[in-house]
Amino acid sequence: MAYIYVYSPSTAVRDKAAFRRGVKRLQALGHEVEIDPAALASHTRFAGDDATRVAAIGRAAASGAQIAIIARGGYGLTRILPAINTKAIAKSIERGTQWVGYSDFGALQCALHTHTGASTWSGPDVCGDFGSGLAGLEGASTPPDDIMEACFDDLAQGIGEGAGWRMPARDEAALGKGVNIPSATLWGGNLCVLTALLGTPYLPPIDKGIVFFEDVAEHPYRIERNLTTWLMAGILQHQKAIVLGQFTAYKLIASYEKGYKLLTVIDWLRSQTKVPVLTGLPFGHVPTKVCLPFGRKVSLNTEGRDALMFWGD
Amino acid sequence: MAYIYVYSPSTAVRDKAAFRRGVKRLQALGHEVEIDPAALASHTRFAGDDATRVAAIGRAAASGAQIAIIARGGYGLTRILPAINTKAIAKSIERGTQWVGYSDFGALQCALHTHTGASTWSGPDVCGDFGSGLAGLEGASTPPDDIMEACFDDLAQGIGEGAGWRMPARDEAALGKGVNIPSATLWGGNLCVLTALLGTPYLPPIDKGIVFFEDVAEHPYRIERNLTTWLMAGILQHQKAIVLGQFTAYKLIASYEKGYKLLTVIDWLRSQTKVPVLTGLPFGHVPTKVCLPFGRKVSLNTEGRDALMFWGD
Repeated sequence: MAYIYVYSPSTAVRDKAAFRRGVKRLQALGHEVEIDPAALASHTRFAGDDATRVAAIGRAAASGAQIAIIARGGYGLTRILPAINTKAIAKSIERGTQWVGYSDFGALQCALHTHTGASTWSGPDVCGDFGSGLAGLEGASTPPDDIMEACFDDLAQGIGEGAGWRMPARDEAALGKGVNIPSATLWGGNLCVLTALLGTPYLPPIDKGIVFFEDVAEHPYRIERNLTTWLMAGILQHQKAIVLGQFTAYKLIASYEKGYKLLTVIDWLRSQTKVPVLTGLPFGHVPTKVCLPFGRKVSLNTEGRDALMFWGD
Repeated sequence: MAYIYVYSPSTAVRDKAAFRRGVKRLQALGHEVEIDPAALASHTRFAGDDATRVAAIGRAAASGAQIAIIARGGYGLTRILPAINTKAIAKSIERGTQWVGYSDFGALQCALHTHTGASTWSGPDVCGDFGSGLAGLEGASTPPDDIMEACFDDLAQGIGEGAGWRMPARDEAALGKGVNIPSATLWGGNLCVLTALLGTPYLPPIDKGIVFFEDVAEHPYRIERNLTTWLMAGILQHQKAIVLGQFTAYKLIASYEKGYKLLTVIDWLRSQTKVPVLTGLPFGHVPTKVCLPFGRKVSLNTEGRDALMFWGD
């Protein structure tokens, strides 16, 4: 299958059992896995100090691997963006290396696309997805998600062409005649990570694109505040579609919210812009996640509750 | 003493006992308190729907009060910034109304200053400070903080001229020869609230100012990520000083952080910019808070561990 390079650009790997399970799973799927020498490095909460992580990214770029995948997300890329050699990453992509990850990895995807136009994959990591670490398991009894693995397998074989999902019933009514976008640049990722790039030279100035968001452990009011920032910055209104993935692991206190919830935020977003808002994208801090080509042209169509994103030829 | 107008622009007042205590305390201090008709309104998590809160702000501007103070912060101002009549607020300030508050209120302070140049006070609220609600108390056994009340009293009498505090010992070493800034515009507030305005038309473009930050329930890595945004946006480097207030109520997991903590973030910030970083400002989600004139020229001087900000004539 594929030659895969595993490296750690963000938070240190603390769940080493999940890391080992993830690597074994990739090997069991037939891949050749090379582990970066600093993949298990630890410097305070980071996977090595800034120089160590910048160097690890450089080794991934020089590896000649077919796939460079992050061990895990967390936090750590934002502060080293100015030091990352994005040209070297872009060249590795020209030579055939596909870069995969999500969450904190979105900062790298944004900086890279802004500076070089190169595209990457928003997709799984090693610990949380292939190692089932997302489930917070000590053992290995829960296998990785089938859909996640099938999408990654398509990516490894170079045959991935699209992603489809079934939207909630309320989306069909909200979308009216449906969505029919022949071609637009796909971009997005973790809402907090990307919002932290607003106003900086690392957020791609993508107009008339399709933007997607997910987040974890963020209260809906914080999701709303971040979306407000994107609206007030004049970015969301100029997209062709807004696609919301999974927002998970937040806590609501009913006596405090009095009915305020994630759906309230989605309704509010729809009241603020005429740009179609699709929800239910299988992407986020959840086991079932598709692979999405950040920075590539895609089409997006809905029919009833079915949404299809397509990037094949 | 002063005629004080109390209104609710953000989250609904849930701790009504704290609200009542706060109003009574202001009255006991000799003030005449007028309560906005929607001060206790509730619409989901907000103190009334958007129109209600915009109208409440308008009534505060029209009140002719000497002080307009928020009942509490939370979240709610960011999304109504485009609807707020900042000119009416600026006119009320010209007529002598002083606007006071903090946390979510920072969004209004920023928008107002950006659009009109008007200055406001970063200071206490009714529920948390005068009602001792910050302490999370059911009863009224803990009185409001002495220093907070003294600073507010100075504000009410129009005799406040400055704020001094003793910095941690490590600041003295970090500051070298000390800080001696004769005049610079003071601005700042809650780090999350202000960061959400980056890249939007609501953040004042203040160059060579003195910026201060505080936050609550934000992990140090998130404080660092937000400060990184300000650095990458090219704003922090162009200030004359960065003043950090109180960052409270976050949780660290020692086995995960491996030594990473708030001081790590402060050291890192100092490594990223030559702008002097002062800490220990008595301001934030804590009982002891001074009143700070957002948008006004102040001087800032340190001598050893003592810092003094001055805005008198």
